[in-house]
Amino acid sequence: MRSLGHQIVAEFYGCDKALLNDVAYIRNHMLEAAVKSGATIVTETFHHFSPHGVSGAVIIAESHLAIHTWPEYGYAAVDLFTCGDSVSAEIGFNHLREALGAGHVSTMEVHRGQIDMMSMGDQGQPAMKLVTSQTG
Amino acid sequence: MRSLGHQIVAEFYGCDKALLNDVAYIRNHMLEAAVKSGATIVTETFHHFSPHGVSGAVIIAESHLAIHTWPEYGYAAVDLFTCGDSVSAEIGFNHLREALGAGHVSTMEVHRGQIDMMSMGDQGQPAMKLVTSQTG
Repeated sequence: MRSLGHQIVAEFYGCDKALLNDVAYIRNHMLEAAVKSGATIVTETFHHFSPHGVSGAVIIAESHLAIHTWPEYGYAAVDLFTCGDSVSAEIGFNHLREALGAGHVSTMEVHRGQIDMMSMGDQGQPAMKLVTSQTG
Repeated sequence: MRSLGHQIVAEFYGCDKALLNDVAYIRNHMLEAAVKSGATIVTETFHHFSPHGVSGAVIIAESHLAIHTWPEYGYAAVDLFTCGDSVSAEIGFNHLREALGAGHVSTMEVHRGQIDMMSMGDQGQPAMKLVTSQTG
């Protein structure tokens, strides 16, 4: 199946709660994840919520990385959406997993933009490639 | 199943190609989608690629909206991630679908951050709620 993009929808449970509330730390590691993945950073925005929680997105030339953290639950929702063969979302995923100290992660991988759909106008839906669940 | 967030992963096919390449138009309608959804906009960033394509994200107090467009294919990848009961990702989805003139859309809905996982440390994966496919 040919598609334009590849998205990892990741759930990080059991993370370090203090790190999840540190916007500078989250931002630095999201940017590092992008660079390590081989992505070109275009723009980014991060925000710290009161009393706790961080949200942010990095727009890369190859799509985006996004994160939302719930320090009170030790949980972070991470999306890594990439396109092209030169970028590895998995590398970014592994970097963030380690940086946040995730005790358990689960992921869903989605193919975005099915080439066959571009001209057919046929029925179609996001294609799930693989679901993995890992305990670190 | 109790979860912190709700994400619509949407594929918009057969969109108006000129609109998909208009960064101001995309930005305006992404912000309008957020407002109509009942979300509180925190920050946003949009970028126009050369020769064509737009990427952007709107961080809302309730998570984010993101878009990537491929005008050459008439395709846009849209993510609407919300949390809480006061925001309707569906309203934002419907707004963008109409604004971009999508001929065919498909969606996948994912529950993010399963409450039961927060304390159990058990195996788990993102929970797909519903897959719909609609031709407009």
